[in-house]
Amino acid sequence: MSKIILTGDRPTGKLHVGHYVGSLRRRVELQNSGEYDKLFIMIADAQALTDNADNPEKVRQNVVEVALDYMACGLDPEKSTLFIQSQIPQLCELSFYYMNLVTVSRLQRNPTVKAEIQMRNFEASIPVGFFTYPISQAADITAFKATTVPVGEDQMPMIEQTREIVHKFNTVYGETLVEPKVLLPENQACMRLPGTDGKAKMSKSLGNCIYLSEEPDEIKKKVMSMFTDPNHLKVEDPGSLEGNTVFTYLDAFCRDEHFERYLPDYANLDELKAHYQRGGLGDVKVKKFLNNVLQEVLEPIRSRRKELQKDIPYIYEVLKKGSEEAEKTAARTLDEVRSAMRINYFADTELIREQSEKFK
Amino acid sequence: MSKIILTGDRPTGKLHVGHYVGSLRRRVELQNSGEYDKLFIMIADAQALTDNADNPEKVRQNVVEVALDYMACGLDPEKSTLFIQSQIPQLCELSFYYMNLVTVSRLQRNPTVKAEIQMRNFEASIPVGFFTYPISQAADITAFKATTVPVGEDQMPMIEQTREIVHKFNTVYGETLVEPKVLLPENQACMRLPGTDGKAKMSKSLGNCIYLSEEPDEIKKKVMSMFTDPNHLKVEDPGSLEGNTVFTYLDAFCRDEHFERYLPDYANLDELKAHYQRGGLGDVKVKKFLNNVLQEVLEPIRSRRKELQKDIPYIYEVLKKGSEEAEKTAARTLDEVRSAMRINYFADTELIREQSEKFK
Repeated sequence: MSKIILTGDRPTGKLHVGHYVGSLRRRVELQNSGEYDKLFIMIADAQALTDNADNPEKVRQNVVEVALDYMACGLDPEKSTLFIQSQIPQLCELSFYYMNLVTVSRLQRNPTVKAEIQMRNFEASIPVGFFTYPISQAADITAFKATTVPVGEDQMPMIEQTREIVHKFNTVYGETLVEPKVLLPENQACMRLPGTDGKAKMSKSLGNCIYLSEEPDEIKKKVMSMFTDPNHLKVEDPGSLEGNTVFTYLDAFCRDEHFERYLPDYANLDELKAHYQRGGLGDVKVKKFLNNVLQEVLEPIRSRRKELQKDIPYIYEVLKKGSEEAEKTAARTLDEVRSAMRINYFADTELIREQSEKFK
Repeated sequence: MSKIILTGDRPTGKLHVGHYVGSLRRRVELQNSGEYDKLFIMIADAQALTDNADNPEKVRQNVVEVALDYMACGLDPEKSTLFIQSQIPQLCELSFYYMNLVTVSRLQRNPTVKAEIQMRNFEASIPVGFFTYPISQAADITAFKATTVPVGEDQMPMIEQTREIVHKFNTVYGETLVEPKVLLPENQACMRLPGTDGKAKMSKSLGNCIYLSEEPDEIKKKVMSMFTDPNHLKVEDPGSLEGNTVFTYLDAFCRDEHFERYLPDYANLDELKAHYQRGGLGDVKVKKFLNNVLQEVLEPIRSRRKELQKDIPYIYEVLKKGSEEAEKTAARTLDEVRSAMRINYFADTELIREQSEKFK
């Protein structure tokens, strides 16, 4: 069986280092590993509209931003299919049929949905489209017969929901859909990067994210004002790593070679951490090092993005081509789904023959 | 503005006299009145699947039964567009977007949904597709820009939901959709015919319906065993009309001319009722009269149906042609919807120009 990946992002803003560490970096590795037959990378505008119905302009403006970030990071339209969710009408039809296979109470029990509802302060006024998005996600995954969905641990209940739908569908209508597997991140630091202020959630309004397209001086400013250990007042004081954003970022970004180049007094991050913990290492020094590391990682992304920005019609061409290809795949799956459900009446010669007999 | 009707039935069984009196008869009148520019008559298989997901074969078998009943009653494919819901993928996409405009709690308050959930004994295990069907119905109505939806009073909250969605959509995205109006039945008897046993619900399992395709002896048997006034034991006793199924059916079916032909002792139904109430009129006589009336009404329907049954492929041809036409209309509406939502990126030259400028 082919190994197929489906993954993507909601186009509600430019992507930041949290996206990079949480998924993008790995996605590029998976793309280049040669281990997967197909990668479908979806810009989930339809899903973004489920809780941004009043502000479609935000979604509309950010589709291209996400595409630019993707390609700047190394997602390559020659290797991966980059597409826009709303351009694949088959996804809506699959959702529609899957909705018959899930109960309202099952959706209400979904922990990811519960958490997201709380995070967005929806309470009683949850849009139906948002409430049902685990079903829509099942449509996204199964439309491409994805075998592998790289997600964080917090998204596992969503994939479980997809697996349930696949199982139910195949049981009722016959073997048609593929049960996907979760591909979890390899290390803890890759799971969720905090904001520069130490807050769990990164958001534009809090001004606590470093964007992939951020300019060098802005990166430096954000790094130098990062949240560290609030009790580490003097250089000679022992410092704590717990909740220390600078070290969390170093966990996520730095490699031994960075020490050679920017901080040769230390061989690796463990040595730096040990010094910080025993006292005598100031925050500024660590921050300067992190700044150097981030600048090195982000510089090629930013310059590729600037190149790509020069030809916006080309970006739309890429997305159009990708969407056409994705649509072909989804249309094939939908045909199989409709045949399995036996609602392909006009092609169902057996039905017409059988009924002609019956009425004779 | 054009006057457009959207209406239809779930293909979960052959249609019976309840359907005829409740909607079909009027639908044919509306079709032939010349007052409407377009009639879209939908066989709602996708909706039937929302609570028959486990039994798709029932739905599959009944699509043609409903089509036969429609055409036997006088719905004319030359005048009305007869189509199958599942063949119009645009309906799923419209539903998908409308789901963002309705809250979960709004759906929970819908009295029709509440009543149907109770009737079907769903309780905690309501399929999501069933729960959200007022939204899907809004898609059906608006896809064809229907101005007029002929329904019973019990369905009014459903149409209200559609009107709310239209209002919300037009407010957020600009004037695009048409707010439909309800067309209520003209008289009480047309609203809901009871089963032959006097029970409110007609169902195949209760054996209490007279089908449009019923054979004459079967009609007679069902009429002669109909529920009347249980206290009307002797002919000379006064009889009651309250809950007397035979008279409810006469209210729905008989016209003065039927008396001339089958019961010339009475000029009209009022005279017959008066005699029954004062005593001296036996149930058998009234039932025989009803039988004659029903035989007269159903005979041409049954024989037209038998003619139609001889060419099942033709029926599917009609449905295919109707579905193609319906799809064209729905696709036009969907295009407008997508333009209004501004998710037609690849056709949106303004967006591409604007963003090219922005990144310069």
